Amino acid sequence: MRSLPRLALIAVTLVASSQPLRAAEDSASDEKMLRAIYTAALTSSPAYENLRELTAKFPGRLAGAKNLEGAVRWSEAALKTAGADRTELQPVMVPHWERGAKESVLMHLATLRGLTTPLSALALGGSVPTPAGGLRAPVVELHSLDALKTADVKGKIVFFNRPMNPLHVSTGLAYGEAGDQRNQGPGEAGKHGAVGALVRSLTLAQDDTPHTGNTTYPPDGPRIPAAALSTLAADRLSAALKADPALTVEMNIHSQWFADALSHNVIGELRGSEFPGKIIVVGGHLDSWDIAPGAHDDGAGCIQSIEVLRLLKVVGYQPRHTLRAVLFTSEENSRNGATAYSTAVKAKNEIHVLALETDNGGFQPKGFNLGNPAGNAHLLAARWKPLFEPYGVYNFQLGTGGADVGPLLAHGATVAGLTPDSQRYFDLHHTTRDSIDQVNPRELQLGAAALAALVYLVDKHGL
Amino acid sequence: MRSLPRLALIAVTLVASSQPLRAAEDSASDEKMLRAIYTAALTSSPAYENLRELTAKFPGRLAGAKNLEGAVRWSEAALKTAGADRTELQPVMVPHWERGAKESVLMHLATLRGLTTPLSALALGGSVPTPAGGLRAPVVELHSLDALKTADVKGKIVFFNRPMNPLHVSTGLAYGEAGDQRNQGPGEAGKHGAVGALVRSLTLAQDDTPHTGNTTYPPDGPRIPAAALSTLAADRLSAALKADPALTVEMNIHSQWFADALSHNVIGELRGSEFPGKIIVVGGHLDSWDIAPGAHDDGAGCIQSIEVLRLLKVVGYQPRHTLRAVLFTSEENSRNGATAYSTAVKAKNEIHVLALETDNGGFQPKGFNLGNPAGNAHLLAARWKPLFEPYGVYNFQLGTGGADVGPLLAHGATVAGLTPDSQRYFDLHHTTRDSIDQVNPRELQLGAAALAALVYLVDKHGL
Repeated sequence: MRSLPRLALIAVTLVASSQPLRAAEDSASDEKMLRAIYTAALTSSPAYENLRELTAKFPGRLAGAKNLEGAVRWSEAALKTAGADRTELQPVMVPHWERGAKESVLMHLATLRGLTTPLSALALGGSVPTPAGGLRAPVVELHSLDALKTADVKGKIVFFNRPMNPLHVSTGLAYGEAGDQRNQGPGEAGKHGAVGALVRSLTLAQDDTPHTGNTTYPPDGPRIPAAALSTLAADRLSAALKADPALTVEMNIHSQWFADALSHNVIGELRGSEFPGKIIVVGGHLDSWDIAPGAHDDGAGCIQSIEVLRLLKVVGYQPRHTLRAVLFTSEENSRNGATAYSTAVKAKNEIHVLALETDNGGFQPKGFNLGNPAGNAHLLAARWKPLFEPYGVYNFQLGTGGADVGPLLAHGATVAGLTPDSQRYFDLHHTTRDSIDQVNPRELQLGAAALAALVYLVDKHGL
Repeated sequence: MRSLPRLALIAVTLVASSQPLRAAEDSASDEKMLRAIYTAALTSSPAYENLRELTAKFPGRLAGAKNLEGAVRWSEAALKTAGADRTELQPVMVPHWERGAKESVLMHLATLRGLTTPLSALALGGSVPTPAGGLRAPVVELHSLDALKTADVKGKIVFFNRPMNPLHVSTGLAYGEAGDQRNQGPGEAGKHGAVGALVRSLTLAQDDTPHTGNTTYPPDGPRIPAAALSTLAADRLSAALKADPALTVEMNIHSQWFADALSHNVIGELRGSEFPGKIIVVGGHLDSWDIAPGAHDDGAGCIQSIEVLRLLKVVGYQPRHTLRAVLFTSEENSRNGATAYSTAVKAKNEIHVLALETDNGGFQPKGFNLGNPAGNAHLLAARWKPLFEPYGVYNFQLGTGGADVGPLLAHGATVAGLTPDSQRYFDLHHTTRDSIDQVNPRELQLGAAALAALVYLVDKHGL
């Protein structure tokens, strides 16, 4: 370097200020910090007990429900306990839909003297109710939305029965591929004259647990009632239809829409020592489906986000940027929390360095997905692989973070999402079974530690 | 190659015969074969249903128990159904210990008018019974075997209460480090004059489920009765001892030793087309603890080993070497199955190319441990990482396979073991909770596919 002219030195300095020199990273001190974070997470973490309390006190945290606002207050207190310098409740108007009395789906055979069998079902979130006295109609089984173009569905109940693809090792990918049936299926079927819709539950499990989830009607079409069937019920209905195509199904859904309700994003901060105006977010969503304790989806992510602040505080790390835990509201049925947050970011012209989401369950973490405007965030983060590998975190992939942080990409943020092991998630997702007993305390804590480690590395070195 | 002299060509051929040329590996066809194996495993596998049946019909498959021999017959039939060309029951004499009537451990306070509290406990496998009427003595809490040298334990019950180290991400490592307390603790305590032993359960879970497991007495010492306490019971006893050091514990264990019993290793083969005399083994152990259904430990490994034969058959692969599934007997309390197998290998001068074990639970597989006489098997196998990574298998480590295949290393075999995710294993290990509902079908099948893929690669290319 002796012969380097002064001008070049200045250029290096300028580059360094926007993107710290890789060579400056001190991997021994980073190793030490990660060890401290993981030690705190694995030995003295309140994460599991917090999740137990959240799901025991406030199950069914759907937008508009009292339990969601109870959880809002509870989480704000938990953020204070974790050491947040500042907390804030960001007001968000959210939809308010209620399931009402327990729904039912009955299969009436045309043969066997009209034998009637109940099918295990849950109304989809957002479904309109059936007419008073229920809805009874013949059934058409389809395997895609495209099939609506040629099938005769007028006056019938459309039964979308395409299973999730078991060949994807990532169950999330399989979920994404099958999701159109639940998300748009009922709305599209209504446009083609169907009177009701049944959807095979989005899961790879073969059992009698139905999985709810949101459905959206197009603004210009009729709204028809819609329910998810458990996979076993879907198989039963499909087999019955082959033997007895004239069978009918009777649906009873008692849902109601109310005026939009006031909810809140819950925010807690550790103020940055060098760049307080530049923000690193870690977040999950506080709402859950009405019938679910919401332990993995996404109580786990909320607890982990709170825990990230606590861990960095407990190991004595002074963040350079402002670290912000954000617990988004109404991810399940509107994403109004995410929209309100990103709108405020834009309005305040806030700079977000990183927005990291955890909404794939509190299972053993194995990596991150990352995205930035340049499309190379995952490659940049992969330089930290050697630091993460001792903890089982090895996978750095291109991605868009998740539903709640995704919108921040348009504001220049690097977005990221934790990728835990995915095999068990869709066994529980959007069901009554998504409860604390399905969460392993160490897997939950390892996830929190991985998040804290990435936040630390980005805060210290930049991406 | 045109100018290469004939001698050099011969040399190349000689090298190739013992170690196939790396360059000859056709990664496109390997990719296709792995895809076929995983497709078969993830779509049409009987693995989970087989495990359900094995654990439902034959729980508590401890050496000497009728259920173990029932499982022997059942597995031989399952190997035939899976397509084995040949099956064999290899006779093995095994120890026969029975727990007898339910054990109890009671804590009698010296204070509080002698308040008595039951502590959740299981006799250790191999423990001698307590004298008629039970054993009651004061308690000394220790945290290592070394501490026996200085502590006064004469006439007392030694309580080994060193927890597993939560900082190891691999729970197996933590288990190994804490295991001396259960394995040798009671025997060593007896030598120092103790009259009984209690051991903290080998788990990182904080709950009231005790974990049994084998204990071994030295030939030259007195044999004292020994039981495991649940971690909560251990914490309770430890706290009580601090407040009330004069408390006593009363143990009642009703175990019995019987004459050695006849058991069997169960063997099923697909005969090799090119090298029928050279063998690739994949195996697990068929026995379980008496109080456990033995779903993860090691029903899962047995079912996966059977499934490896079925998968390779179903995808139409013709193995070059003879593929052998071996379900070892009495791993839990003698390893006589492993000894009998390796003794026969030596007696018949059989060549084992690879001996692959699966005995770490039916969880999401993430890699293999491998060992060979040259100590480089894990490095050689790591060249297949790109083939495995799409399936979440990325970790190739140095190791010695496992308890059942380990002895084959001395006979020149490369030994290996499947490494599944370890977080949940020791929550269930050696307990009543090790049941089918704790097994995720896809994780079980992904494990079987990973094993089949490694067997295929070694069979086709050599290591």
